[in-house]
Amino acid sequence: MKTYAPVTEAVLDALKTIVGAEYVLTEPEKLEQYQTDEETDPRKFHLPEAVVLPKDAQEIAAVIKLANTYDVPVTVRSGGTSLAGGAIPVCGGIVLLMERLNKIIELNAEGMYMEVEAGVRTVDIQKYANEAGFLYAGDPCSAESCLIGGNIATNAGGNKAVRYGVTRDQVYAVEVVTPTGEIVELGARLKKKSTGYCLEQLIMGSEGTLGIITKATLKLQPIPPYRFDLLAVFGDPEQALDVVPKIMQAGINPTSVEYMDNSYVRGTADYLEFKGAPHYENGIYVIITVETFSEDELDLKMEQLDELCSAAGAVDVLEADERIWDMRRNCQESVRLISLVSLTDDVVVPVNEIAGTIKFIMKIGEKYPFPVKINAHIGDGNLHIVLCKCELSDEEWENKVEAFHKEVYTYAYSIGGRLAGEHGIGAKKLREMETYTPAGELAIMRTIKAAMDPQLILNPGKIFDL
Amino acid sequence: MKTYAPVTEAVLDALKTIVGAEYVLTEPEKLEQYQTDEETDPRKFHLPEAVVLPKDAQEIAAVIKLANTYDVPVTVRSGGTSLAGGAIPVCGGIVLLMERLNKIIELNAEGMYMEVEAGVRTVDIQKYANEAGFLYAGDPCSAESCLIGGNIATNAGGNKAVRYGVTRDQVYAVEVVTPTGEIVELGARLKKKSTGYCLEQLIMGSEGTLGIITKATLKLQPIPPYRFDLLAVFGDPEQALDVVPKIMQAGINPTSVEYMDNSYVRGTADYLEFKGAPHYENGIYVIITVETFSEDELDLKMEQLDELCSAAGAVDVLEADERIWDMRRNCQESVRLISLVSLTDDVVVPVNEIAGTIKFIMKIGEKYPFPVKINAHIGDGNLHIVLCKCELSDEEWENKVEAFHKEVYTYAYSIGGRLAGEHGIGAKKLREMETYTPAGELAIMRTIKAAMDPQLILNPGKIFDL
Repeated sequence: MKTYAPVTEAVLDALKTIVGAEYVLTEPEKLEQYQTDEETDPRKFHLPEAVVLPKDAQEIAAVIKLANTYDVPVTVRSGGTSLAGGAIPVCGGIVLLMERLNKIIELNAEGMYMEVEAGVRTVDIQKYANEAGFLYAGDPCSAESCLIGGNIATNAGGNKAVRYGVTRDQVYAVEVVTPTGEIVELGARLKKKSTGYCLEQLIMGSEGTLGIITKATLKLQPIPPYRFDLLAVFGDPEQALDVVPKIMQAGINPTSVEYMDNSYVRGTADYLEFKGAPHYENGIYVIITVETFSEDELDLKMEQLDELCSAAGAVDVLEADERIWDMRRNCQESVRLISLVSLTDDVVVPVNEIAGTIKFIMKIGEKYPFPVKINAHIGDGNLHIVLCKCELSDEEWENKVEAFHKEVYTYAYSIGGRLAGEHGIGAKKLREMETYTPAGELAIMRTIKAAMDPQLILNPGKIFDL
Repeated sequence: MKTYAPVTEAVLDALKTIVGAEYVLTEPEKLEQYQTDEETDPRKFHLPEAVVLPKDAQEIAAVIKLANTYDVPVTVRSGGTSLAGGAIPVCGGIVLLMERLNKIIELNAEGMYMEVEAGVRTVDIQKYANEAGFLYAGDPCSAESCLIGGNIATNAGGNKAVRYGVTRDQVYAVEVVTPTGEIVELGARLKKKSTGYCLEQLIMGSEGTLGIITKATLKLQPIPPYRFDLLAVFGDPEQALDVVPKIMQAGINPTSVEYMDNSYVRGTADYLEFKGAPHYENGIYVIITVETFSEDELDLKMEQLDELCSAAGAVDVLEADERIWDMRRNCQESVRLISLVSLTDDVVVPVNEIAGTIKFIMKIGEKYPFPVKINAHIGDGNLHIVLCKCELSDEEWENKVEAFHKEVYTYAYSIGGRLAGEHGIGAKKLREMETYTPAGELAIMRTIKAAMDPQLILNPGKIFDL
């Protein structure tokens, strides 16, 4: 990894000239707040040398030009909700906070779009759209605290991806500060475009390594007025999972299809003290949300779903009320009842491979000394495998986790899967990214990074090394 | 533009060693067949020095390595249906034909995907999918003769883009030969992915300048069993166009929304000798296709559409039978009745700007000495403006066309439009691309091209110059 120049007094003075002295933080207790994101392992923390709060793209561009001049790395921090160490300044240098770019610029009902600055909270975008009678379909689980720029930079997924796609599908255009400090607008508010390279899709998901997103034009959808949430309970995970491709083939177009294994059914029911949780003892939950524009269509789809689930071997098909969704939402929290330390994975596989993948994980899981719990966005093949440290020693935990991941990733790649469905690679999975990505693909990524960011200023130590 | 080395005997010998002597064409009458695509102006033709028919990605990779060694340019020719000179070898060198890569490798019903070689005809993919009970939703107007690799390379649009998106939305993954002759697989058969740069979207739409697509994994959709085609006839173009955003907001999700101005209504009715064409005298047609998974849903949507069109001022709302679709399909052909030479444009604008754009074009059109005809995929903002040379002199025609285009493109870019919705830039609009594309965006395209193809071997003289 490259060695950078330190943030000297000269750099600090220049930063203060650009953004104003009150927006350059250097006090140790302030810097400490930005040494990590959702990462909890202090060995992975890293202090920035300065934290800068620019107010707009012009100031960011000036900061980036300065960083190039002084050879100082810049890590953008959005909401700080990364589960992959994406906001940790692993090479030190400057952390750029986006929170002052927090304006919703426009909602255009006729054009069905919103223009927002990168620092707007995702939940505020959702609400604003809703109040105008539209849906912003990006819906990561962290929507309450994450910012839209981070969603775009990591191509966040979430709960509505089955029907609406991931964040990259919700964005028409982005304003970006390039690694050399130019401000460019990429993409366009168009449904078709065959006018040069699709640079907006290259920037989206590049985790702040190819450009800093400062503004975005987001797609809005009409809100389907009818909704039903169905809970299909299965006794056998394979049956539960085999129903998913059938739902897709039938054209039901669900908004989401979620999966909780029995350990989560019990764990969340215990955590929420929900005594009457259906099939607590041995139920596996598949929660399916369908939304439509007519009541007839909803009725018809519910009927189809009921038949499909029953034919697949569901032991019960019920309405999934708020309590069931509460269980789903509290999967992560419930883990703390059994283990203070745990690790969440984000593997993604083709939808028709998910049954085999979960079976494989359950089988190899038996060899390991930690509980393996699975919840999943099964409608899009995205598995969150949670490993619980419980009473294991640090050393055993780390060795076994590594061995377990090696088995899982090797299997996932062998069937066309990838390391991360929605969390990104960040610093956390950089080594795995380099191990599992085919050499030719990684070579192109490195070529593009080196060409666009010749001094490697933007977010170094993320995704892959150069 | 760079000057390349000629295709010498040594190059030809090496090519023959790679693909076999019978697959290297050098006879002048053979080369002549590949001097153009759908371009009809002989001044834009360019002879290749050799035409090569490789059988697979390995042979293509070897040809590309050879081309780098000898500094010879390579232009890939797919179906040869480009309307932008995309298949013309403007710098000479080698033309690579993809027709031997014509295998449908797999259709997987459970996974809802097809794997195909790049040289398969699009219509054959559509048929194959249909026979297995699925829809391949890519549907360019040239589907009968174009090949899937060219569709992907130009990000072709077509008739179903309103509902299903463009070609880049139909593709999970591509196998690509890079400009330096490596074979890489980009993308994955996944609904979510946040694992490094989205290279597959960068390659798609890059018109053969960043890589040669040799294989593709395509998404399949369930076929909606119910369909209705509605013809709304308007007297006023503005009313006809204002209805489109309303249809989108209502969640009707039409498969296509097509527009024919009255000159096309008359022209195609005359061309097809269709005496009873509704509102021949002054009708403007909006043809809307809706497809659903239930009869109730179809009925409901037709009712909604009827109301929306009537409220918008439609003078008539009818079923659009096959004769109406025949008219739509024969727009281009019908132009020949009034002019042997004509020019088709492919401007795309935001959907809610299409009324204003057509009004603008009609207004400025009055100043010009040629008829201006408009048909459009209005559901996605893509206009085909057709200019008819009729009896104009070459010089006047060219000067006036240039002036007209300048007005139209300047207007289109001012409202967020682009030069090409689905035809690509190719050689035809290279100068306009360089004129109208913001400097920062063009600079990134050039940086990426130069980094990935340092010797500028692949398809030089297309999209932009280096």
